[in-house]
Amino acid sequence: MNRSQLVAQIKTKQNYLCVGLDTDITKLPKHLKDAADPVFEFNKAIIDATKDHCVSYKINTAFYESQGLKGWESMEKTLHYIPDTHLKIADAKRGDIGNTSAQYAKTFFEVLPFDAVTIAPYMGEDSVRPFLEYENKWSIVLGLTSNAGGNDFQQLLVSNAYPESNMIPNLTQGNTEKRLYEKVLEKVASWGTVDNLMFVVGATRASDLEHIRAIIPDHFLLVPGVGAQGGSLEEVSKYGMNKDCGLLVNASRAVIFASADTDFAQKATEVSAGYAAEMKQYLLG
Amino acid sequence: MNRSQLVAQIKTKQNYLCVGLDTDITKLPKHLKDAADPVFEFNKAIIDATKDHCVSYKINTAFYESQGLKGWESMEKTLHYIPDTHLKIADAKRGDIGNTSAQYAKTFFEVLPFDAVTIAPYMGEDSVRPFLEYENKWSIVLGLTSNAGGNDFQQLLVSNAYPESNMIPNLTQGNTEKRLYEKVLEKVASWGTVDNLMFVVGATRASDLEHIRAIIPDHFLLVPGVGAQGGSLEEVSKYGMNKDCGLLVNASRAVIFASADTDFAQKATEVSAGYAAEMKQYLLG
Repeated sequence: MNRSQLVAQIKTKQNYLCVGLDTDITKLPKHLKDAADPVFEFNKAIIDATKDHCVSYKINTAFYESQGLKGWESMEKTLHYIPDTHLKIADAKRGDIGNTSAQYAKTFFEVLPFDAVTIAPYMGEDSVRPFLEYENKWSIVLGLTSNAGGNDFQQLLVSNAYPESNMIPNLTQGNTEKRLYEKVLEKVASWGTVDNLMFVVGATRASDLEHIRAIIPDHFLLVPGVGAQGGSLEEVSKYGMNKDCGLLVNASRAVIFASADTDFAQKATEVSAGYAAEMKQYLLG
Repeated sequence: MNRSQLVAQIKTKQNYLCVGLDTDITKLPKHLKDAADPVFEFNKAIIDATKDHCVSYKINTAFYESQGLKGWESMEKTLHYIPDTHLKIADAKRGDIGNTSAQYAKTFFEVLPFDAVTIAPYMGEDSVRPFLEYENKWSIVLGLTSNAGGNDFQQLLVSNAYPESNMIPNLTQGNTEKRLYEKVLEKVASWGTVDNLMFVVGATRASDLEHIRAIIPDHFLLVPGVGAQGGSLEEVSKYGMNKDCGLLVNASRAVIFASADTDFAQKATEVSAGYAAEMKQYLLG
């Protein structure tokens, strides 16, 4: 799915909700546990219940890998069940040296028909490049994450001097320092375009969004952390939106585990429809 | 496998070689291509051919994932074929928010019987913590990597001031800056012990090893990049070794694809035995 198709979906549906299929098998409603493939049965019901109120699904690969081979089967079946109108994201946080990243890109873009995959930036350009070589596919690189540990390294002040120069920054000449995540946004943005790159930006620090938009005004941002992780949809929308919307706001547990009972799908419809209705206001506003 | 068992293996075998099973299906010898599971047949032959000359195997998960479900089956079969005398590493570069990292830890330490898994540090403490909670298992966190892109972020100068202090470092009061990878080594080391944490340190910058040993004198280091990636085993051993050896030096392509013909296993024996013999000299020296 390319950018204009994604933007068209957002305009048609008047929302920018991504539903996260972090399908934890231990949290499934009891009545599904005897199904041949409880994870797929659950996901199918969730997709049916939410597809009219979202534009994207994000499959958190960890919850499938932890079920072994059976989990990968559930993931494949789920992926094929998602309508082609929806952007399909593999939340896999991959990234390795070039020849290995090429294998991951093949996994998610050829073997599995995902539209996008999340990527960790620590290993630099050759770890991202192989994903960018696919047309109409997206690399979603970690910028600022919403978890507690996000502070450990992403917020470190880094010198503006690139290492190859071995220059010690002269702090008397104005602001020569940036946060690591800002450096990551700047540098990674130079490797691709607004048509094949997005960034993960944690919603629980929505006040940072204004600043982030100064660095990457046009890219789409994948914002996790609204819902169970506690971010504010209003703030994210106010500070993060651009002329193409430019946002995909994810909710996982808040939607899929809204109820642990037989009414889970109905509750998922209600919660996702609620987010979508709120988003419509921000799109109009 | 715990630290004393690993050290005992190194002492018994007089080498610290890790053989990387980056089994690229397109590079297999022709005569294996018609086997029911060519990747497993190849790995089996490589393990038989090299097990006397190494103490560890590293499975690069990307090369298995890219074969879909069949690839995961090949990986499982390979993993179970590796003798228990050898440290089994999943080179998977995982890492996500706490509840998701817990799923990855379950995948590699419970569902699959790996001893160790490689982890990307960008998301900080809660992304590493769930892996550290397993007894006699290892988290191998990326420190300094040997690929070209390793320079993009890992070598950035970061201020010694932690972000929570919002302090601008005073450069006139001595060296208040470090490289990002040094900060990562320091901080991650504080989350675990020398019994459950190792670091990935790229061999192509062996001169950095002396400096790294000043920060983490006692941890084991996993050193990729000897062989096809071009690092020097001599330099790595000279600057990286500690009293428990403290090194696992990996060679992948240089061993497993030493020949693309029917003699691939014999060549793998020769190359791995060559590395092992060289290592024996450094251990004695």
